[in-house]
Amino acid sequence: MADKKVGKQTLQFACAPAITSWASIVGPMEGQGPLKEYFDMVLEDNLAPGEQSWEKTEQKLMQHSMELALEKVKILPGDLDFYFAGDLLNQIITANFTARFLSIPFIGLYGACSTLAEGLCMGSIFLDGGFAEKVGVSASSHHDTAERQLRFPTEQGSQRPLTAQWTVTGAGSYVLQKTGTGIVITHATIGKIQDLGESNANNMGTAMAPAACDTIITHLQDLGRKIHDYDLIITGDLGEVGLAVLKELLGSKGYATDRVSDCGVLIYEPQQDVHSGGSGCGCSAVVLNYLLDEMLYKKKYYRIFFVGTGALLSPTSSFQGESIPGIAHGVVLEYR
Amino acid sequence: MADKKVGKQTLQFACAPAITSWASIVGPMEGQGPLKEYFDMVLEDNLAPGEQSWEKTEQKLMQHSMELALEKVKILPGDLDFYFAGDLLNQIITANFTARFLSIPFIGLYGACSTLAEGLCMGSIFLDGGFAEKVGVSASSHHDTAERQLRFPTEQGSQRPLTAQWTVTGAGSYVLQKTGTGIVITHATIGKIQDLGESNANNMGTAMAPAACDTIITHLQDLGRKIHDYDLIITGDLGEVGLAVLKELLGSKGYATDRVSDCGVLIYEPQQDVHSGGSGCGCSAVVLNYLLDEMLYKKKYYRIFFVGTGALLSPTSSFQGESIPGIAHGVVLEYR
Repeated sequence: MADKKVGKQTLQFACAPAITSWASIVGPMEGQGPLKEYFDMVLEDNLAPGEQSWEKTEQKLMQHSMELALEKVKILPGDLDFYFAGDLLNQIITANFTARFLSIPFIGLYGACSTLAEGLCMGSIFLDGGFAEKVGVSASSHHDTAERQLRFPTEQGSQRPLTAQWTVTGAGSYVLQKTGTGIVITHATIGKIQDLGESNANNMGTAMAPAACDTIITHLQDLGRKIHDYDLIITGDLGEVGLAVLKELLGSKGYATDRVSDCGVLIYEPQQDVHSGGSGCGCSAVVLNYLLDEMLYKKKYYRIFFVGTGALLSPTSSFQGESIPGIAHGVVLEYR
Repeated sequence: MADKKVGKQTLQFACAPAITSWASIVGPMEGQGPLKEYFDMVLEDNLAPGEQSWEKTEQKLMQHSMELALEKVKILPGDLDFYFAGDLLNQIITANFTARFLSIPFIGLYGACSTLAEGLCMGSIFLDGGFAEKVGVSASSHHDTAERQLRFPTEQGSQRPLTAQWTVTGAGSYVLQKTGTGIVITHATIGKIQDLGESNANNMGTAMAPAACDTIITHLQDLGRKIHDYDLIITGDLGEVGLAVLKELLGSKGYATDRVSDCGVLIYEPQQDVHSGGSGCGCSAVVLNYLLDEMLYKKKYYRIFFVGTGALLSPTSSFQGESIPGIAHGVVLEYR
């Protein structure tokens, strides 16, 4: 028997790895949203100073967010044992070029918008398993790199349906250490793909909601817990439309939904005209900065279940008539 | 101190997870190569029976290779704790749709041609760390899906320079269990990105050779071993050109090179006109099937260092003038 596995999909971390530092950098739109005070830096433009392309801007965002997170705890990149990162771009070039710069042994991940949660799971496993003392985790997205790669040329100004989410420009980075106090990761639940047949790439929240629901219920069953054992269950990123679907799914199975929220819903103001809310690996990666600040400095939450959700499609799979597989990975964060 | 880490980048597995099963399916060209007898199935055409696209063919290859590997040890997909997979396609759709079909908790990886090695590292860490009892690992590529995505439309019939490698059509899958005899994984070395400035996407072997060299030397230093402590050190996939560069790099630092070989060199006959040899995540994923057969059934090797090598570029990064970051992850395979 795997002694650190509980139930079907949940892992229990005896050492409870600590998240000892975090940092975030966002684009101008996110810098006008309700969480602006929680981000370390806000770009004035969609291009970073001195950069000629959105892709190189995104890479700098990820790199600087990790550098900032390391600075806060006075750790050099070379002191990290391993680095886990991923992004939305083809062949995860943002993560690759960041890992080249940082020069840390690197594990490339792809989980679409669940990437940050996937990285936190992997990092915790390395730490709790005795394979590392300190690891770094990053995820990012950029509105313009994602839109032109995955949907339409940015200059085309295509109309977006109301179910569509707005890809966040932002990067979030985290330092995890084997021992520490403050915020710790006690459990991870690794998700299974769920696909109920949604095939509209402009309605990814609906495509991902069943995966979020499955991971949340499996997690609660694995640990014998209830929704109200958490101060907050937060998905990233279903948006308004997907969150409503998730609440309906949970409610129909008899689960409370009053403490369920979503990073994509929190990041923008309604008047910012983003339709269903934020998305992209960068969304939950920067909103988790806000949540951790609320836990650590304001004692607002003592235990959160943070559930990253990914829509695992590509333009090619959509063109070939496939529906959209969703996945959700979760970690339990506790303030101690 | 991380008690399972030795030296800078190497992990030591006290439980020595066993590779209890493996399977491979290849395309017609690979089925005419020197290793044809070692593959479980050979496609007659670049399309699988009943499939309308190369992408859906690649997905079926990965899926069937995992199903075959599971059948050999009479394990159902649902008996696996976790599934690690990745491929070359944008947003790793091959792995995503395979994970949807298998319905196993899934970790998506991207490491280009190092993906299989990356998956074997992750799987071993889950098993040795006490997080799982049984895991599955797959990687795949398809010549026609990769070429049209990463280089030129297949129908264009572009000429290829002699330094270019031929993307393998094939998928390989592996079942790893916490305890077992036969072939076991004793160590993993996680690579750092190396980039000496090579920017020719038709010379990826040269771009990846420095990463292979760095991982091999770091591994030997971490464990205080010599090249001749291994019966074979095999990279995947540098091709003829990259292997020559690797041998030159190793030789210049005083290391023996007589037991160093490459999966991309082994998979085709010289008369198959593939120029520098094979590449793609599927190349090392199917050639490792051959190596394990040689270890287990013919006792040809007792200890191998299998080093997956990845070129972490994308068409976008090349268009924007970037050089090609290389990475290499290695696992030590022992016959016991």
